[in-house]
Amino acid sequence: MKPVVATSINAIRGAVADAKKRGLSVGLVPTMGALHAGHVSLLQAARAETGLVVATIFVNPTQFGPHEDFNRYPRPLEKDLEICGQAGVDAVFVPDVKTMYPDGFGTYVEVHGLQDLWEGASRPGHFRGVATVVLKLFNIVGADVAYFGQKDAQQAQIILQMVRDLDVPIRLRICPIVREPDGLALSSRNQYLDAEQRRHAVVLHQALEHARTLIAKGERNAAVVQQALADRIKATPGAQLDYAALVDPQTFRSVERIGKEVLVALAVRFGATRLIDNLKIESPHG
Amino acid sequence: MKPVVATSINAIRGAVADAKKRGLSVGLVPTMGALHAGHVSLLQAARAETGLVVATIFVNPTQFGPHEDFNRYPRPLEKDLEICGQAGVDAVFVPDVKTMYPDGFGTYVEVHGLQDLWEGASRPGHFRGVATVVLKLFNIVGADVAYFGQKDAQQAQIILQMVRDLDVPIRLRICPIVREPDGLALSSRNQYLDAEQRRHAVVLHQALEHARTLIAKGERNAAVVQQALADRIKATPGAQLDYAALVDPQTFRSVERIGKEVLVALAVRFGATRLIDNLKIESPHG
Repeated sequence: MKPVVATSINAIRGAVADAKKRGLSVGLVPTMGALHAGHVSLLQAARAETGLVVATIFVNPTQFGPHEDFNRYPRPLEKDLEICGQAGVDAVFVPDVKTMYPDGFGTYVEVHGLQDLWEGASRPGHFRGVATVVLKLFNIVGADVAYFGQKDAQQAQIILQMVRDLDVPIRLRICPIVREPDGLALSSRNQYLDAEQRRHAVVLHQALEHARTLIAKGERNAAVVQQALADRIKATPGAQLDYAALVDPQTFRSVERIGKEVLVALAVRFGATRLIDNLKIESPHG
Repeated sequence: MKPVVATSINAIRGAVADAKKRGLSVGLVPTMGALHAGHVSLLQAARAETGLVVATIFVNPTQFGPHEDFNRYPRPLEKDLEICGQAGVDAVFVPDVKTMYPDGFGTYVEVHGLQDLWEGASRPGHFRGVATVVLKLFNIVGADVAYFGQKDAQQAQIILQMVRDLDVPIRLRICPIVREPDGLALSSRNQYLDAEQRRHAVVLHQALEHARTLIAKGERNAAVVQQALADRIKATPGAQLDYAALVDPQTFRSVERIGKEVLVALAVRFGATRLIDNLKIESPHG
């Protein structure tokens, strides 16, 4: 069935209010569109767990840097709406920029500490934009549960912290990374890759799996694992390492010694395209 | 009747959820305690307009500067609860600092532009603390309407802008300033004044009324009115002018020429005590 498409805040709030009157719980999947199987896994989780599923499609300008890909970011709206329909989405909120950022807009949410590390260091202002737009979408939709992907691990952690710190009345579900058959994590930006870059892009996943093997074999020195990751990336044609990090999954601060739980995170450029991937590794005897 | 006193987030949310199930609308009056007739006017407005009245009493550390009066700020809790009871408040939320700012807290709301002017310039970080705690209280209580005083005009405008920018689902009511018989605006900080300072403190109101007279007589040059305000304050024993401003009531930017609507705002120190007052002046032929 075709989902309702709402472009105004009043329209999406009306759809949600109707559902709540009927006693339905509301699930929210915020996206920037260009939907792939990763997004579909979030929509399906929402469909399975809540009564009204709302997806949002909004390429959020405040989370892009001045030299990033805001303008060329893909916007295949018709195809996205079809995918939403197939996934059983009830309503899609597709606001324009003026609806989300009216004249005189000036309020931002900052998650200090977390927002300045890794992705935040590479992309200044990125997480301020993410936290702000996500809080706006939470406030607009009034969902009971919101769904995010583990692919953007630091984003997920920032939203968890924001919800906790600001007492936002919503429950969060962080869903596993969905991968191509060769292991490449799904991303709307994968379509920027040419054939050769696409072939080599599997190195992110391979390097992470190599890190898992090293740790499973007993390696506890984070610097050793980090070096192994960096070596793999540097040996790959066309790949440029942005960062390879072993961090605490809550604080995203670097660890020196690998304990019970470590998040291994990678950011790699292929030409103008920047890919990220991560793996949470638990060592019962860490 | 004695109000319910809740110290935990779950307890106050439970009280509100019960009321909502009974179909009641919820009114919220956030305060730092030390309640006076100004607060009572907010509680009474909430009592008249909503079904469940929730007051919060929390001296918010993040809105005080390092050399401000956080520690000596008055905390007469028993008397405050009595005043709440007399005003017909149903529930009072009295969290401690750890409840509002648990370990690892790091998320702040910033209202750019507005937050850096006047009160924000005199008190760096003040409005960040205000916006953050107010949003938390909105999220915790889930009220339909929140009540603030026009006495803190810039605070009220910042909260209006935050609610608009972040799409917070709440309605705001800004209530008029309540004054002593001699015109001094009620403030919890008035009790810091000694007898002589208290006598001279009426100059804020007198200077504002003088500005009103000048404008009513046709003065349109903001600098002239500002100078008249400053002269009045400087001529008052023990009074030290912090700022005298004629601003646009929405943006709080200084105006040069007085138009249809101007906000005249004053901040004056008497010893260690800082008092503020303001007057919105409409000139139909501005």
